[in-house]
Amino acid sequence: MGKTFEQISIGDTASFEKTISETDVYMYAGVTGDLNPAHINHEAMKNTKFGGRIVHGMLTAGLISAVLGMQLPGPGTIYLSQQLNFKAPVKMGDTIKAVVEVAEKLEKGRLRIKTNCYNQDGVEVLGGEALVIAPRE
Amino acid sequence: MGKTFEQISIGDTASFEKTISETDVYMYAGVTGDLNPAHINHEAMKNTKFGGRIVHGMLTAGLISAVLGMQLPGPGTIYLSQQLNFKAPVKMGDTIKAVVEVAEKLEKGRLRIKTNCYNQDGVEVLGGEALVIAPRE
Amino acid sequence: MGKTFEQISIGDTASFEKTISETDVYMYAGVTGDLNPAHINHEAMKNTKFGGRIVHGMLTAGLISAVLGMQLPGPGTIYLSQQLNFKAPVKMGDTIKAVVEVAEKLEKGRLRIKTNCYNQDGVEVLGGEALVIAPRE
Amino acid sequence: MGKTFEQISIGDTASFEKTISETDVYMYAGVTGDLNPAHINHEAMKNTKFGGRIVHGMLTAGLISAVLGMQLPGPGTIYLSQQLNFKAPVKMGDTIKAVVEVAEKLEKGRLRIKTNCYNQDGVEVLGGEALVIAPRE
Repeated sequence: MGKTFEQISIGDTASFEKTISETDVYMYAGVTGDLNPAHINHEAMKNTKFGGRIVHGMLTAGLISAVLGMQLPGPGTIYLSQQLNFKAPVKMGDTIKAVVEVAEKLEKGRLRIKTNCYNQDGVEVLGGEALVIAPRE
Repeated sequence: MGKTFEQISIGDTASFEKTISETDVYMYAGVTGDLNPAHINHEAMKNTKFGGRIVHGMLTAGLISAVLGMQLPGPGTIYLSQQLNFKAPVKMGDTIKAVVEVAEKLEKGRLRIKTNCYNQDGVEVLGGEALVIAPRE
Repeated sequence: MGKTFEQISIGDTASFEKTISETDVYMYAGVTGDLNPAHINHEAMKNTKFGGRIVHGMLTAGLISAVLGMQLPGPGTIYLSQQLNFKAPVKMGDTIKAVVEVAEKLEKGRLRIKTNCYNQDGVEVLGGEALVIAPRE
Repeated sequence: MGKTFEQISIGDTASFEKTISETDVYMYAGVTGDLNPAHINHEAMKNTKFGGRIVHGMLTAGLISAVLGMQLPGPGTIYLSQQLNFKAPVKMGDTIKAVVEVAEKLEKGRLRIKTNCYNQDGVEVLGGEALVIAPRE
């Protein structure tokens, strides 16, 4: 089980980092049905400002969910809501670090958690925040 | 290319529906690193109120992104932000319909779009809204 | 980084548990080229004592490696050797728990670690031990 | 069916060779839950002596199991045990040859088989031996 409301303090943080491969993007495209040319059509994308295919923003968001559900608060967490602000494109081969940080302890066991993703150059690619209920004993 | 700001009217709607398989959940878990027992451990989940493993909420959210990026507005859309409210669990084998509906036309070509997902019983499993910029001509 | 030799005590333990799906077996078969009918041919297996396809023993062994490399000792571990004793078949749908326990602290920073996997009924399906070097500071 | 004890002689050999792709590593990581940064985080690995991500040792071991179960002895083999000695890192893109060679015929139909894996430069990356029971007629 993950950490309870009582065991969590404002400022607690956790993270997960992964290099996003072409395989990730293609498997994700198949799972979600998101076959937007931006993600799977190199010809359509090579002459855009992106210079090629980009990673689904919602795939990147999955790394946030992984940290919340596996680390902080961890297994048993109830995910109430998530705000996502897409700030910069992610390219295949980028290494993305998802960072969560407890911002506020609310009534009824709820936590407001800042959620941000950065690439290998430190550029914030995804911002926002989550509202969760930490696991109960 | 998708529809431009001018071609889109308030109330326009589009949807995508898919049965979410165990395979979808397992591939998604591998792609995102979200191996939370809630999604991959039947023994840990069989005696919970869910009665077994549940689908990642962020996987379901991927269906919304698929509709926005492929249909309305469609290819060329810039995804600015997404609010997600997780309302009910999704089980493997559930058939999820993601529905998007244009709610407001804002300045600078931006659109506010209601985004909701329903299961085969009509239960809303995911609510929220997106902010996007429609493709330019 | 994982735990160093000094931070680890005899008797320390860690585990990881996962329900092994048909998808896992099929993806593993494709990755390793192990298309043995025991794993992918239901017709060939349905009248054997197993009553159907079984999971690759070496796939189950992968859960041990996951615990060693991610938890105990964790990232930075050098994997020297692994003895695997295949003790009972694993069926698709079984939930396997891989448990590692530090058995001995040896010279040159090496650790001897007992590695065992159990199914949901507590049956040991895989035994053996690993020799690793814990991460250095 | 594979070869029986009587049909097998000491010195018999078989092999399987495959180029291990990034896709293989990423799918294997998802299947086993082994998301050790050594395998999926280029940034964490690029400045190590490995110069980047490496292949899971246990994935390489899967090629041995493929040869034992599909060729020598082949389908119907009972896999009793496997000793694995990890000798050198495998990089994505390396072409690995798994070679098995019958070393000893034991009582009760058991065979001791040398199992080794080599990369495209002839470097032994994995050594060890297996104990199996050949298929019965």
